Amino acid sequence: MAAKNMRNIRISCIIWLAFCWLVECDDRRQPLRFGGKTGEFRILQVADMHYADGWKTPCEDVFPQQMPSCSDLNTTAFIRRLILAERPDLIVFTGDNIFGFDASNPETSMNAAFAPAMLSNIPWAAVLGNHDQESTLSREGVMKFIVKLKNTLSLLNPPEAHVIDGFGNYNLEVHGVKDSSLVNKSLLNLYFLDSGDYSTIPSIPGYGWIKPSQQFWFQRTSLKLKRSYMKKPEPQKAPAPGLVYFHIPLPEYASFDSSNFTGVKQEGISSASINSGFFTTMVEAGDVKAAFTGHDHLNDFCGELTGIHLCYAGGFGYHAYGKAGWARRARMVVASLEKTEKEAWGTVKSIKTWKRLDDDHLTAIDSQVLWSKRSNSKLLIH
Amino acid sequence: MAAKNMRNIRISCIIWLAFCWLVECDDRRQPLRFGGKTGEFRILQVADMHYADGWKTPCEDVFPQQMPSCSDLNTTAFIRRLILAERPDLIVFTGDNIFGFDASNPETSMNAAFAPAMLSNIPWAAVLGNHDQESTLSREGVMKFIVKLKNTLSLLNPPEAHVIDGFGNYNLEVHGVKDSSLVNKSLLNLYFLDSGDYSTIPSIPGYGWIKPSQQFWFQRTSLKLKRSYMKKPEPQKAPAPGLVYFHIPLPEYASFDSSNFTGVKQEGISSASINSGFFTTMVEAGDVKAAFTGHDHLNDFCGELTGIHLCYAGGFGYHAYGKAGWARRARMVVASLEKTEKEAWGTVKSIKTWKRLDDDHLTAIDSQVLWSKRSNSKLLIH
Repeated sequence: MAAKNMRNIRISCIIWLAFCWLVECDDRRQPLRFGGKTGEFRILQVADMHYADGWKTPCEDVFPQQMPSCSDLNTTAFIRRLILAERPDLIVFTGDNIFGFDASNPETSMNAAFAPAMLSNIPWAAVLGNHDQESTLSREGVMKFIVKLKNTLSLLNPPEAHVIDGFGNYNLEVHGVKDSSLVNKSLLNLYFLDSGDYSTIPSIPGYGWIKPSQQFWFQRTSLKLKRSYMKKPEPQKAPAPGLVYFHIPLPEYASFDSSNFTGVKQEGISSASINSGFFTTMVEAGDVKAAFTGHDHLNDFCGELTGIHLCYAGGFGYHAYGKAGWARRARMVVASLEKTEKEAWGTVKSIKTWKRLDDDHLTAIDSQVLWSKRSNSKLLIH
Repeated sequence: MAAKNMRNIRISCIIWLAFCWLVECDDRRQPLRFGGKTGEFRILQVADMHYADGWKTPCEDVFPQQMPSCSDLNTTAFIRRLILAERPDLIVFTGDNIFGFDASNPETSMNAAFAPAMLSNIPWAAVLGNHDQESTLSREGVMKFIVKLKNTLSLLNPPEAHVIDGFGNYNLEVHGVKDSSLVNKSLLNLYFLDSGDYSTIPSIPGYGWIKPSQQFWFQRTSLKLKRSYMKKPEPQKAPAPGLVYFHIPLPEYASFDSSNFTGVKQEGISSASINSGFFTTMVEAGDVKAAFTGHDHLNDFCGELTGIHLCYAGGFGYHAYGKAGWARRARMVVASLEKTEKEAWGTVKSIKTWKRLDDDHLTAIDSQVLWSKRSNSKLLIH
């Protein structure tokens, strides 16, 4: 097993280097765009890499026979394989990107953790988890380091928000196909928020949460995007769909059981112990179709509540708790444009998701439609 | 019974007129102050007057024999008796002040509903419920009318908040005793918020809620007040206590049962159907000791959760659902200052509450301490 693992990693390295050398990657900067050939925008979510010191850092919760050759490099190999297989337009890292406690140097760990994204020339975005600041850098320090890395679209915080809690709150627009009539419209809106680390309030135990200042910014941003989308030229009748990425699940993730979610729930929902209202704020905003978190490595489900899908990505990193025999995994989201009567690309028609397992075939599982224009049209305007 | 009721109302009218003529009422404007003689600040909360057309508007849920002589005037008589008995320093009307559906003219109804407060020369503050706008005035129109009435300290919205949901979000400071060293410090902070009327989001049924913009304003105001209180001159070690008034209870009001509240729960908690996080925001602010609502006329309890008392006032108005034989009621809150070593008035020592019933003796029930400086000191700083 160990020898096979090492061989797989070596093969993956060779293919990877060839990919980076051969493929003519766009130097895509803002704004992101839907692809002109496929009419798609593809997002790979990587949750909880828990990166530390590379080859020196052992895996957790793998079979004993895998241990000798298993390290952070397995995490790197997995992300490389995913990039080759899925060719995402954006990679989103939803926190606990590094595991601060075990990182000798957080800059080195981050450089290694994000290396596959940086080398691929694919734009990427990151938010903070609850472990990223556990080395020598503060949360602000970690986010300030991230925003300077190659090809990242991450921002420290939105320049227009004078007061905002946390670090790494920002949004990205995904514009229409180049040379189309929707070239200057954002057809898909991505929001990134810092869900904090731990409560600093003595009477509230447990994890952090999304604060009123962040929700206020989110709400105003959503409103601004809606207005822009629905005004001339090419005024649209309903808001563009929005997707939200952060680390710690909301208390509403506990609303589901196996009868109403897709995926598995193998541990409790480690949300904040209180409800800070962000689910309500998303529902009220009216454009959000799904939220994507990590944090609970053994949960990978999507459940729909009041028109919003609440999704986990499932644990990705090898130096993170997991379950031997239950493959590390990642979540793909693909938004697809519809064709207009004139055979041009129009606005978003549907948003689909599936997960990819780190097995020999990168098996895709749990494919589901998160949103489609027709079925949800009644929910779009209020 | 009917004759006795009429006689009581007439006697109450005479005493009331004598009070308004004889008593030298201060024309108290901002800032409110603790009394120099008693070291107290006394707040009368009046919830759900449901005022309509005065004597023409019949009572609800009283005994059949009370009906012939029972009208909105009973509501007026009750508030007058309370003012005489409790001599409050501030009267707070927590919404459903008028019952719009039955008010022929909302201005006339409001003039009559607030008349006892206006005539008493006691400062008063009001927030909106879910019924105030059901006549010919919008919520904005109702609040704009209220803020112009005599002796009110109500505000349409805080001038410093450029974007805020609802109407009637503001705060009031209660300063130290005149000629004391704390004359320019706010020792008790009162927050008033518009909890809305009904959800406008199709996927969320039911009542309104306190939005992120309001919570953001509340949080910033609380922080500003804390900083001011804890800086020179007379810097204090912990924030001044805060009390919050609004109409619709929070979902967290459902956390209690008779084992852990004082008062009664005779109907369900009619909060919004979702959690918008305001309880968390209050806990996080760190200064709030209690929140006071109305809305559910048959609940009058106070329960403590994470250091914050969540209190109902109980139904006040006679043209509102209630329960025959279960007296209409109001809630008093009294904050008391401690004496310093030099026998001068210091900061707030304790906050107590009780309810007064509309019976022959205005019976006081359910007296309880909401907060005292000593017992809660560990919770004060974070």
